[in-house]
Amino acid sequence: MHTPVPEYLQEVLADLRAHVGGAVADYIPDLAAADRDRFGVALATTSGRVHTAGDADVEFSIQSVSKPFVYAAAIMDRGVERVLESVGVEPSGEAFDELSLEHDSHRPRNPMINAGAITTHQLLLSDDATAAARVERARGFLSELAGRELRINESILRSELDTADRNLALAHLLRNYGVFSAAAHEAVEGYTAQCSIMVTARDLAVMGSCLANGGLHPQTGAQVVPSDVVRQALSVMAAAGMYDAAGSWFSEVGIPAKSGVSGGMLGVLPGQIGIGLFSPRLDAHGNSARGVAAFRRLSADMNLHLMTAGPVGSAPIRAIERSTDRITVVLQGAIQFAGAEAVLDRLQSIDAEPTTVLFDVSRVDRFLDVGRRMTLEGMRRLRLDGHRIALYDPDGLLPDPDMGDGHFPENLPDRELRRS
Amino acid sequence: MHTPVPEYLQEVLADLRAHVGGAVADYIPDLAAADRDRFGVALATTSGRVHTAGDADVEFSIQSVSKPFVYAAAIMDRGVERVLESVGVEPSGEAFDELSLEHDSHRPRNPMINAGAITTHQLLLSDDATAAARVERARGFLSELAGRELRINESILRSELDTADRNLALAHLLRNYGVFSAAAHEAVEGYTAQCSIMVTARDLAVMGSCLANGGLHPQTGAQVVPSDVVRQALSVMAAAGMYDAAGSWFSEVGIPAKSGVSGGMLGVLPGQIGIGLFSPRLDAHGNSARGVAAFRRLSADMNLHLMTAGPVGSAPIRAIERSTDRITVVLQGAIQFAGAEAVLDRLQSIDAEPTTVLFDVSRVDRFLDVGRRMTLEGMRRLRLDGHRIALYDPDGLLPDPDMGDGHFPENLPDRELRRS
Amino acid sequence: MHTPVPEYLQEVLADLRAHVGGAVADYIPDLAAADRDRFGVALATTSGRVHTAGDADVEFSIQSVSKPFVYAAAIMDRGVERVLESVGVEPSGEAFDELSLEHDSHRPRNPMINAGAITTHQLLLSDDATAAARVERARGFLSELAGRELRINESILRSELDTADRNLALAHLLRNYGVFSAAAHEAVEGYTAQCSIMVTARDLAVMGSCLANGGLHPQTGAQVVPSDVVRQALSVMAAAGMYDAAGSWFSEVGIPAKSGVSGGMLGVLPGQIGIGLFSPRLDAHGNSARGVAAFRRLSADMNLHLMTAGPVGSAPIRAIERSTDRITVVLQGAIQFAGAEAVLDRLQSIDAEPTTVLFDVSRVDRFLDVGRRMTLEGMRRLRLDGHRIALYDPDGLLPDPDMGDGHFPENLPDRELRRS
Amino acid sequence: MHTPVPEYLQEVLADLRAHVGGAVADYIPDLAAADRDRFGVALATTSGRVHTAGDADVEFSIQSVSKPFVYAAAIMDRGVERVLESVGVEPSGEAFDELSLEHDSHRPRNPMINAGAITTHQLLLSDDATAAARVERARGFLSELAGRELRINESILRSELDTADRNLALAHLLRNYGVFSAAAHEAVEGYTAQCSIMVTARDLAVMGSCLANGGLHPQTGAQVVPSDVVRQALSVMAAAGMYDAAGSWFSEVGIPAKSGVSGGMLGVLPGQIGIGLFSPRLDAHGNSARGVAAFRRLSADMNLHLMTAGPVGSAPIRAIERSTDRITVVLQGAIQFAGAEAVLDRLQSIDAEPTTVLFDVSRVDRFLDVGRRMTLEGMRRLRLDGHRIALYDPDGLLPDPDMGDGHFPENLPDRELRRS
Repeated sequence: MHTPVPEYLQEVLADLRAHVGGAVADYIPDLAAADRDRFGVALATTSGRVHTAGDADVEFSIQSVSKPFVYAAAIMDRGVERVLESVGVEPSGEAFDELSLEHDSHRPRNPMINAGAITTHQLLLSDDATAAARVERARGFLSELAGRELRINESILRSELDTADRNLALAHLLRNYGVFSAAAHEAVEGYTAQCSIMVTARDLAVMGSCLANGGLHPQTGAQVVPSDVVRQALSVMAAAGMYDAAGSWFSEVGIPAKSGVSGGMLGVLPGQIGIGLFSPRLDAHGNSARGVAAFRRLSADMNLHLMTAGPVGSAPIRAIERSTDRITVVLQGAIQFAGAEAVLDRLQSIDAEPTTVLFDVSRVDRFLDVGRRMTLEGMRRLRLDGHRIALYDPDGLLPDPDMGDGHFPENLPDRELRRS
Repeated sequence: MHTPVPEYLQEVLADLRAHVGGAVADYIPDLAAADRDRFGVALATTSGRVHTAGDADVEFSIQSVSKPFVYAAAIMDRGVERVLESVGVEPSGEAFDELSLEHDSHRPRNPMINAGAITTHQLLLSDDATAAARVERARGFLSELAGRELRINESILRSELDTADRNLALAHLLRNYGVFSAAAHEAVEGYTAQCSIMVTARDLAVMGSCLANGGLHPQTGAQVVPSDVVRQALSVMAAAGMYDAAGSWFSEVGIPAKSGVSGGMLGVLPGQIGIGLFSPRLDAHGNSARGVAAFRRLSADMNLHLMTAGPVGSAPIRAIERSTDRITVVLQGAIQFAGAEAVLDRLQSIDAEPTTVLFDVSRVDRFLDVGRRMTLEGMRRLRLDGHRIALYDPDGLLPDPDMGDGHFPENLPDRELRRS
Repeated sequence: MHTPVPEYLQEVLADLRAHVGGAVADYIPDLAAADRDRFGVALATTSGRVHTAGDADVEFSIQSVSKPFVYAAAIMDRGVERVLESVGVEPSGEAFDELSLEHDSHRPRNPMINAGAITTHQLLLSDDATAAARVERARGFLSELAGRELRINESILRSELDTADRNLALAHLLRNYGVFSAAAHEAVEGYTAQCSIMVTARDLAVMGSCLANGGLHPQTGAQVVPSDVVRQALSVMAAAGMYDAAGSWFSEVGIPAKSGVSGGMLGVLPGQIGIGLFSPRLDAHGNSARGVAAFRRLSADMNLHLMTAGPVGSAPIRAIERSTDRITVVLQGAIQFAGAEAVLDRLQSIDAEPTTVLFDVSRVDRFLDVGRRMTLEGMRRLRLDGHRIALYDPDGLLPDPDMGDGHFPENLPDRELRRS
Repeated sequence: MHTPVPEYLQEVLADLRAHVGGAVADYIPDLAAADRDRFGVALATTSGRVHTAGDADVEFSIQSVSKPFVYAAAIMDRGVERVLESVGVEPSGEAFDELSLEHDSHRPRNPMINAGAITTHQLLLSDDATAAARVERARGFLSELAGRELRINESILRSELDTADRNLALAHLLRNYGVFSAAAHEAVEGYTAQCSIMVTARDLAVMGSCLANGGLHPQTGAQVVPSDVVRQALSVMAAAGMYDAAGSWFSEVGIPAKSGVSGGMLGVLPGQIGIGLFSPRLDAHGNSARGVAAFRRLSADMNLHLMTAGPVGSAPIRAIERSTDRITVVLQGAIQFAGAEAVLDRLQSIDAEPTTVLFDVSRVDRFLDVGRRMTLEGMRRLRLDGHRIALYDPDGLLPDPDMGDGHFPENLPDRELRRS
């Protein structure tokens, strides 16, 4: 058999193509020339699988969809404290091109509006980085996330600069308030170059799946973004990504998302999926009309809503196997708080006379920090109850398993040994 | 051994008690008389376990923490469309007592600010309900969530009404704009009665765990709130629950939460946990000072952040067992999109010559809608490939398993049969 | 002959009646029942003459037109500093029923919006005045200005109170912020009684002419309002009287004005005229549609614009008569700065050998303070030049004419003596 | 004797110098280098007399004080309708450098804020004027008002352009909204050149006196600005000149005024006086600290307040002389509405048997339009009563005196004839 996911996606495209209109952005020729009926979608799982339908491999300029990614890069480069000095995290309740500077600090209210994104680009690398280096930093980082070398469309870049009055106004204002010191035209040019990076819906899905996976790239296995940076970037995207409709987007769709004027959209559901979409017809708010409709449809059909995340780690204990000389606790999945709490709860029932308790973590995907600590604490307590603790960890998911009191579980190096 | 969670909670209380101050609300004598050093916390899992520390069983008036629950009740009573006609869902970027009516519609911007909560209370039951019936509806619904009969503190109710000018102003304004038609003093009295319901930190944790569990009460097993209503209520709480700091709360804590002036706080992490907290010392924003600090601590220590939800349903397939005459697919946990997608992906590898494929769902917690549909579609495709499809579903988690083409899997009613 | 002014006014009414529509306020039956085609206008000069046309003697409730008068009464009762503590003077840029409280102080922004007018009413008399005494203070003061006993229409008062939600909201809010301490319903009832005082267009013109005349009643000669109070009241009416169109009203009409929802309008051009008008058809802003049109017409036709006040006191020196033994300086009109400056300029030319300089002020209307001081300084300097100074002041317009150095002009008590 | 006005002004300067501080603007070196203790004041009457004290002849850059004058020039060049299309007239309630664009139209709210002033400069001459021509238009017009050739300080211009981020932001924003089409840097450079024109306090007083005199230059007698343009410019200056303190300035000072960052201030009291002032020490609002104090003092001491303009034209009838064969009506001053109304009132008493009524207008300063019409109407009615009408008008103040019915008064060409 073949998985029906691509067929489902094609059905969504077909339905929406028939019923949703919209007009393409026409403020620059390159956007006006976009084939308005392009429509592509891609889903990428945290396991690295990608499903696509329609024009998922057609390139378009990333535009505002670059904002959450470059925000993450800026935090990696400068630290979150430094970035928060210059750009806030509150929703603005306003359209994307509003000034929205905070009253006293004059910080842009968040990095998803243009004022915040222009400032964020200036935070890349260091205070004395060149303009070219910042653009290359953005391009390189996005390429790493996409898993291929992305390029800047110089024609789009030039066209955008010809009608960049609004962004120039923002840049002069930000300079005026001392938010950054670069020349206004240079700041706008750098940000516009970042917006002119060409991507596909597939790229966006893959890039999103890396964020959904806590920064660990599902396809390369590399930790491209530290998990705390991912958390910050996704939090801000969830709170402010959809501009002045943050609340209704949250309740109706529930997928943290970001749209761009060329018709691209990114969605990220932590732990589950990255979504990439391309349809240049825009609605009155400047979002991809079919893109918004597709997100509503995907959320409704597929239960992809932040607030309906089902029970997580509901079965962290695969089995507790008792033999004459051993109790084996087989864990699985990702061990986070709720899972570890459930494990500890189950361990309370191990009140037999002292024996060996073997923790088999060979089927665990990973331990989140809290899961590691709680599991080790459980071992410590069982040891204090008189049990002998053993660990089977062929993939090294629990390195340096100090139970907190200087004792370590006995290591079982050999699967056969365990099976005995 | 005993689970270390309560000890951890006690440690958190001890740390914060020593380092965080704040002042109690004193606008009414009953609040000013609160023992300012009370400090209690409770966690309730979606599995129904509750852990507490400190003054988790001390009663206090629920105040604004009632808002998300009564919002859910109003949606249950009137439907979401009717409720959205009168109250919006956008964050207001303002303090709790701001007017924040939408410019054209004059709807309160969301149900978490007082204007929206007064209106929400008026939506309970029906247009011609009595004031007393609405109050009883609120009290009864909160009691059902808490799993015990809650009572209204008449002394607090009377005191609050003596200083209710702000809320009376809101009610007159709402009446003026036709948002509701009840007399202003009646509307304020009803809302204030709702705020005077007495709860404990334990109650709030349990109530929250029901929302975290999609409305299915972890302790009673009853579906107290429909899952789509839970989704709406949690979405609005996430977007607007912390008033003018929605963005920084989201990024720093990442747990949808609501606080009240008497020092109560509620947190809900979908799929994982409900948190209840009580500490009457307030910070400058009117939130429980120690409560806010405790949420930050819990989020950081326990990875309880909406954006770091680890991989969900990472192991929906417990095993694929092959015997001479049968391939058995053992599913487990909650089957939602990411899980079903993974199942379908694995099923693609079943390309052996036609045989019997048995789906054992006896270890599944539940099928979300999308999981059900995708699993049945997988069955259909395997059947088209020539396989015979069987189902072992002793708990009836897949009722009426039409594969979409009028065919049903063969039912295996007997565990022994399956084990064969 | 007869003065053509009334005929001109009739012509204005006829023109506008034919071309300007509008709808009557219908939020209370008494207003909805108003004869919508009533149309009356009255002009009252600072000399006490009144010209009318149309329904100038039909009574209507004064409504918001009471605001500048009661503001003046409050300043008379409490002093301007006390009043400014509670009500600001800045235009609000908003509609009449906006909250418009200042950000930090929570003062209503000005006394022309309802929040400010309700507060102003509470400032009447003293902090411990009864509600009834405040209403009587307002009624009595307006009656004194109108020159007849005005009465309150109890039916309108009762009707307005039935739909007073907006004002009750304001009153509760003001109480909440401690702007005043009266019960909200009592404050609204007092203000609404003030609004229910019945006046005619003729009354408003006469009341306005008293303000135009610096508070000196043109018909009774009594100083009904101190001139500094008039200046404050007219200043605020000029800056904020026409709500959110202060600037365009200023440039297009240039007559400080106030309108009311029952169709009344008041205009005051300092030094020239009071205008009263009544036409219940309202435009979209809630102003009398024909009233606004009439003001535009009067301003354009009659050059009644604050910024085109022609040269003032251009001829303060009626004559300088030289005889063999005397130079007589005959002054006339109102002697204010520009006039006195011109007088002093002319006096510089009196450089003849020492003689008697007689100041004949029998034709002077009045000396403003600055005019008195400058005239006396001129006398002092002429005296230092060796002249003998004499004064003919049969009406006592220059009492106690100390030249500033202890010397007084010689008084000529007798007209015949002067004529000699 | 000598007029005491200059001595009074010196006394004001001495008092304020001792008690009022403030700091000079230091955002550009040329302003920071200003001698902070300079302090000069000048009064110019509508009769052309100028009184000064202190540093009234020290040059400084005109800065924002140029705004009302250039607004007048733009209206002269383009008509008021065209100017109103691009710039509003409402007070903004905000500081000088706020964006304050109107919500829908994106017009700057008024020409006194920078956004409006930059736009106003672009309206000079015509749409296709060169940048240089616009600057020269501004410089030339200001020179004509000042009565001397003013020059641009190129050093100040260059310095200001180095720190013009705020104005560049405004210009880009205005361009973005299509308010004007010039390049942003060109628009800012033109406006900044206008601000760099060097004036003295004496210049400002003379320029103001021309506006006070209805556009008729008091010193040259030329109608430099049409009276309706003056009215518009002064109206907007009165409503919006003092930025966010329009209301308190109006009530406390009552002189339409404009201040600039270099310490200059302009005041205009229609019909009376122009005031120029220079003191570079600024208060927290960016206004000349001593300048504001001086205006308060002048207003209080000299009764120079728009709302205390004393009776205007109170004595338009100098005399009514009766002889055996003639009644002579001697008019004087400026004949506007209130004056003409008084004249007509007096004429009603001429009910003698038919005789000759001679109007002697040889002492009239001028007839405003309404005064002319009303006077001629009086003649017509007296003629209908049977009188013979004669006119003595040696200065031609009543050209073409058609009484409205084709009849003209008999002209008395000769003073002696009249005296007979």
